[in-house]
Amino acid sequence: MAKARRFVPIVPRVATAAAAGVAAIVMATSHQTATVFGVEVQAKFQYMPPLVFFVVANVIACAYSILALLAPTAPSPAARLVLAADAVLGMLLTGAAASATAISALGKNGNSHAGWLPICGIMGAFCDHATGALACGFVAVALHFLVLLYSIYTMNSS
Amino acid sequence: MAKARRFVPIVPRVATAAAAGVAAIVMATSHQTATVFGVEVQAKFQYMPPLVFFVVANVIACAYSILALLAPTAPSPAARLVLAADAVLGMLLTGAAASATAISALGKNGNSHAGWLPICGIMGAFCDHATGALACGFVAVALHFLVLLYSIYTMNSS
Repeated sequence: MAKARRFVPIVPRVATAAAAGVAAIVMATSHQTATVFGVEVQAKFQYMPPLVFFVVANVIACAYSILALLAPTAPSPAARLVLAADAVLGMLLTGAAASATAISALGKNGNSHAGWLPICGIMGAFCDHATGALACGFVAVALHFLVLLYSIYTMNSS
Repeated sequence: MAKARRFVPIVPRVATAAAAGVAAIVMATSHQTATVFGVEVQAKFQYMPPLVFFVVANVIACAYSILALLAPTAPSPAARLVLAADAVLGMLLTGAAASATAISALGKNGNSHAGWLPICGIMGAFCDHATGALACGFVAVALHFLVLLYSIYTMNSS
């Protein structure tokens, strides 16, 4: 039983690390150059602060999820600290995914009320890249949520 | 001791409900009409999906924080469910605050790379209102985080 308990969180933690790592890499490598009315314009993730936040948060999530494999499992007093850190990471990852989604949706649809035009018609490849990164980011959120639920489940079962 | 334990989470839960309720009300009542080059333009929170998400999430947080006052405290099996729900609400509130911040920062600063102009020069009152709502939203996140930490603290102390 103890073996099973040790085994279960490893799979979602490694999967979270992989999804967050892929999300960060895909977003960080998304850039495109296009010509609009004879002027060369560039799209890079660095130009949008929420996308930079997304990359940083997913790098942290990837590193944390690997380090957390070494953390003690419940029942133990240190497991509470790990659970608190898991909760913080869940909030960080969700915040990053949500803010990146907000800015990506604006890039795709624009906002006529604010006079913000969509850019995905011109920067299609950049938008596809960012959408792929977001999908990986949401997979990381879902997987980390499973880790969090498992941590909560094991907390009081001693 | 049991009395003290019952008392402690009540204060941050009520404070979270109050902060989230104020955040939702302030954001939901933020609107402005201005005249630009002789054309009347309006700013409403409904025009920005992340601000609508912010209002909905804070209404849910307000209602949940009040209902959670009736929930059993640890040690009890149901306390694990409450802790899981607390974690979900933490993620929801952070996601809402982060996406609303992303769009509000864009309204204030614009984004020259995407050709999105700032709107706060024209819609100053709307932006001030939204900034106030965001401040309350972040206070709600911080207070709910205290609730979450306390829930984790009480979980394994039986």
